[in-house]
Amino acid sequence: MLPCLYCESAAGDLRQALVHQDRDVVAFLDWRQSAPGHVLVLPRHHLSAAELFSGPVGGALMAVTMRVAQAVQRIGGADGVQMGALLYPGQAAATRASGRARHPGEPPIETAEDGHFHLHVLVRQHGGELARIYPFGDEIGAPEELEAIAARLRSALLQTVDTPRELGRALRPFGA
Amino acid sequence: MLPCLYCESAAGDLRQALVHQDRDVVAFLDWRQSAPGHVLVLPRHHLSAAELFSGPVGGALMAVTMRVAQAVQRIGGADGVQMGALLYPGQAAATRASGRARHPGEPPIETAEDGHFHLHVLVRQHGGELARIYPFGDEIGAPEELEAIAARLRSALLQTVDTPRELGRALRPFGA
Repeated sequence: MLPCLYCESAAGDLRQALVHQDRDVVAFLDWRQSAPGHVLVLPRHHLSAAELFSGPVGGALMAVTMRVAQAVQRIGGADGVQMGALLYPGQAAATRASGRARHPGEPPIETAEDGHFHLHVLVRQHGGELARIYPFGDEIGAPEELEAIAARLRSALLQTVDTPRELGRALRPFGA
Repeated sequence: MLPCLYCESAAGDLRQALVHQDRDVVAFLDWRQSAPGHVLVLPRHHLSAAELFSGPVGGALMAVTMRVAQAVQRIGGADGVQMGALLYPGQAAATRASGRARHPGEPPIETAEDGHFHLHVLVRQHGGELARIYPFGDEIGAPEELEAIAARLRSALLQTVDTPRELGRALRPFGA
């Protein structure tokens, strides 16, 4: 079996700007920031979309995603937060992966994206188009810039809540 | 409170090409088909993202989404299936909604997208870019074409399965 980039990232074997980790779920910055605060949320272990959402980790992942989304709003610049994921990336993702830029620590394999579910949390600008995941191409962020964004998100996460009733009070109202 | 387009669609008050419905979850074609098989999956009742994924309906919605994704693959033309959603659409979505084309049966309100979570299941082409939700603008599909696609999806849904072990056998392998 070929190595999985996401398994290696979740295990801390690749340098990432970490936003959150617990027993089941890991969140870190995408190397290619579509806008400051572009986060990947994924199961720590190698689970496909179907495995993830048929089991208990799916709920945990969505709960973390909701808190990350609040944190992205808190650090500013987002009028909305969008999520996106490939449910069955397979060959389509592998083809894409073969042509894109690589991080210095990233293994040169074409099938790294196969299988391991990962969800993009994306910043949405007021009045903007529905975001592409990488509107600016494959530019990779400088490590110190990524770490600075991640540090702000980790701090903002401490102020997030995870029950719907409390969430209604915690969220900054739009357009208010 | 202003009327909610998604509540009205889920209740069957607006004509939609229905793909699936159960007690908690409804799926129908988007009027603007980014590619044939572009489906919206949403809770029947007015739940925000945070409410949805903190409660039991979140899991039901993701399970339906996984089956819809299989059905989209089965009717052909998809090399992969992508999902996307606005977690906190708020004002950003309302601004967008005010400028887009309307279906003949759609109420002329700007805040129709506020709050009621809906997930886009999108067709992904082999080697293509990560899809925008509406790459072809606001063109609305002809009702008979939408109904024909929905009928194929309803039929394909009968052949889908919802446990991970079975799913591994049911999915068409990519690139095989």
